[in-house]
Amino acid sequence: MDVERYIAGRAAAVNRALPEFVSRFKGSQPLLSEAMLYSLSAGGKRLRPVLLGAAYEVFGGKASDILPAACAIEMVHTYSLVHDDLPAMDDDPLRRGRPTNHRVYGDAMAILAGDALLTDAFGVLLSSKYPSRVTPGALLAAAEILARRAGARGMVSGQAADLQAEGFLQKRNAGRGKTGRAGRTTARSVRAGLQLLHYIHLHKTADLITAAVEMGAALAAAPRRDFNSISAFGLELGLCFQIADDILDVEGDKEKMGKAGSDARNRKLTYAALLGVKEARSRAEGLLRRALKRLAGVRGRPAAKDALAGIATFVYRREK
Amino acid sequence: MDVERYIAGRAAAVNRALPEFVSRFKGSQPLLSEAMLYSLSAGGKRLRPVLLGAAYEVFGGKASDILPAACAIEMVHTYSLVHDDLPAMDDDPLRRGRPTNHRVYGDAMAILAGDALLTDAFGVLLSSKYPSRVTPGALLAAAEILARRAGARGMVSGQAADLQAEGFLQKRNAGRGKTGRAGRTTARSVRAGLQLLHYIHLHKTADLITAAVEMGAALAAAPRRDFNSISAFGLELGLCFQIADDILDVEGDKEKMGKAGSDARNRKLTYAALLGVKEARSRAEGLLRRALKRLAGVRGRPAAKDALAGIATFVYRREK
Repeated sequence: MDVERYIAGRAAAVNRALPEFVSRFKGSQPLLSEAMLYSLSAGGKRLRPVLLGAAYEVFGGKASDILPAACAIEMVHTYSLVHDDLPAMDDDPLRRGRPTNHRVYGDAMAILAGDALLTDAFGVLLSSKYPSRVTPGALLAAAEILARRAGARGMVSGQAADLQAEGFLQKRNAGRGKTGRAGRTTARSVRAGLQLLHYIHLHKTADLITAAVEMGAALAAAPRRDFNSISAFGLELGLCFQIADDILDVEGDKEKMGKAGSDARNRKLTYAALLGVKEARSRAEGLLRRALKRLAGVRGRPAAKDALAGIATFVYRREK
Repeated sequence: MDVERYIAGRAAAVNRALPEFVSRFKGSQPLLSEAMLYSLSAGGKRLRPVLLGAAYEVFGGKASDILPAACAIEMVHTYSLVHDDLPAMDDDPLRRGRPTNHRVYGDAMAILAGDALLTDAFGVLLSSKYPSRVTPGALLAAAEILARRAGARGMVSGQAADLQAEGFLQKRNAGRGKTGRAGRTTARSVRAGLQLLHYIHLHKTADLITAAVEMGAALAAAPRRDFNSISAFGLELGLCFQIADDILDVEGDKEKMGKAGSDARNRKLTYAALLGVKEARSRAEGLLRRALKRLAGVRGRPAAKDALAGIATFVYRREK
């Protein structure tokens, strides 16, 4: 299969559906809905909604039937980017090659646009029409997964730990003089860094990617054993995705990424920085292998499983 | 009935229940959960959860059966206060007599604590156990109400309009010289101000208070006609609450409010500022009267309706 074409096709369906749900914001304060739409329509791979739809298809559904759920997880992802970019957080001027939300609408409106995207993600998920095979119980389960994986024990904890990690790096780099060379990197500080980094990746990135496949499986009422296998696939894939992203940040072409080098500029903790690019790539490869093994254990439609495997491999190999 | 005692008793039950739900955040980043708890345990009247429980009882339920839903709406209210207080928004140093969240934990952690409280409000609502009379459909309806009333067409739009209103006031006060006297107040500018203010109150305050009674009614599967009547009661009550709050901000004793005068300091648009305290109080009284009339039309348990009427009257008369 041509996975890039598959992803692009599925992403296009999400891009067509988003405005429909977004039209529900029409009654809202005009600048607020404009700010929400600005970030929602900034493009991106739409990886999470594509994964959600593919996971639903593994268990016999049709992705086009659950587009509201796919759009909902993209809204949660978008809110997290808008808040992450704020001056109080990462202070990023660019996202996907365009000025960040707060650069266009101001900090206050960007905070509110993020709040509204997060809240209305649940609105879109919960108030939409689904085929009868999606029971109220399945919809409740999907919404509960989204809240848990995106909330205090999930994505937000990853971001909080990321903030704390900046303190860790400042401490580690205390010996850094005017030469710009890093302080002595001991085996212990690398070990502590790896532990912290794993926690950050697990929550900041892997939790929401895991939520995508879990929500697809929950909406299709997947058997518990297969739900657990596809969940494990999502977690390994999410960890792989973040390491690949960090490597791209070091190696990526600025035009391709639209934000290359910002991690290095912010002196963020990354595998590439701690272990070097080669070792980081080898870890990502190991994660991809484990993800594919978990996926192989899922009982479901082979074509949809192939699509998920293709997406996972693409995530590891992608160049932007 | 002694309404202050009733409210205090119901609020105490909410305060006892909150830590139980909050203990679910234990797996989260330590400073994040500390910041969440800091604002959740700051006290307050717990008006929204008390209203939610009373509305559930109007239709035959027992408030103690739906404490998770009551705690969920308080979490949404708390998130909105944490974000409203941020330097990028109202820049308030005090809330309920204590330093605001960002003054203790920094802007970034306060943004994240608000994000997590909002997300986990849905988590607590959706993942808790309820008696069997609360069907999955009723729970979905309650969650959908919360998302709609708190989201882009609801509470967040009120806050966005409030931000925009600061621009309106700056324009209106452009003639204000060093004497500190306001620029000429024309009938037209008062009319435009009243219109804007109504929009702000409707969304910033009344929407979430309406959500409280609507969620109680939805969880009890109230008949459509009574749902609409109690919803209208909530909306009038919410508008009355905000005018009373504005009057207290002008007249209130600083120790009682813990933040008196901050609206005047920020030159916020209020009924008291536009029309004077006397006219503002008369409007609040009219809203209370209409709210009680709507409530009278609800078919339900008289004792619970009396409690709601008592709360409404208390909201109008309260001194802090």
